[in-house]
Amino acid sequence: MYQVKIFTIGKTKESWLQEALREYEKRLRPTMSIEWVIVKDNAQLITQVSKEKAWISLSPNASLFTSEQFSGFIHHHLEKSGSRICFVIGGAEGLPVDFLSKSPHCISLSPLTFTHQITRLVLLEQLYRATEIAKGSHYHK
Amino acid sequence: MYQVKIFTIGKTKESWLQEALREYEKRLRPTMSIEWVIVKDNAQLITQVSKEKAWISLSPNASLFTSEQFSGFIHHHLEKSGSRICFVIGGAEGLPVDFLSKSPHCISLSPLTFTHQITRLVLLEQLYRATEIAKGSHYHK
Repeated sequence: MYQVKIFTIGKTKESWLQEALREYEKRLRPTMSIEWVIVKDNAQLITQVSKEKAWISLSPNASLFTSEQFSGFIHHHLEKSGSRICFVIGGAEGLPVDFLSKSPHCISLSPLTFTHQITRLVLLEQLYRATEIAKGSHYHK
Repeated sequence: MYQVKIFTIGKTKESWLQEALREYEKRLRPTMSIEWVIVKDNAQLITQVSKEKAWISLSPNASLFTSEQFSGFIHHHLEKSGSRICFVIGGAEGLPVDFLSKSPHCISLSPLTFTHQITRLVLLEQLYRATEIAKGSHYHK
């Protein structure tokens, strides 16, 4: 079982997003458990994340991946780190530049700027897709 | 008022996605009307789209944009084409290569593969963001 921790700012208020996230967490349950660490602001986020050995920060300007590359990247990371992985999603203004430069890994889900709420959904769907790619299922054609 | 037509395959079944799309359509209402053309398969999609003078096909492998570039691109397109714009989202297996090669424009929302359902949401949010960028609002910081 893989353990994924996602650090993010502000509760998920929109009911549609809560429902969407629940759906993907349910699909992920057999292979991956999702733990949300929800804080108030960037200062709290940095304090919390700094307790971790390693983490992956999300930023539109970072390295881009295809879904296959993303699957390879996270599975490689999970193997090296005892089946644990942490992601960090900034708030409305993104993550501070100096935090990004200290992050062990930075990746981009798109050069487009997404709301930090939609980023949660895209990340979960890509994690689900990554596990399906690793299984060789028909979900990712 | 801008008119946006989005050609896509299969109804929006998920209630969370219906709610999310309604939310962004509501936000877009003062500047942009959204018309969904929902068909059964790629063959119907190509027949319907071919009646249009021009359209923008979405594909993970096409040109990438930042949100500012996307805003510039679509506003330029809207000016040239009498305030009308068409987008085409393929089904689960994406758009056929020969259709993509005949498309007047192809753009990518991300090199990642999204479900065609999530693509609808990301496209609407980017359209809303594009209008806010053009207005110089605080939505896109």
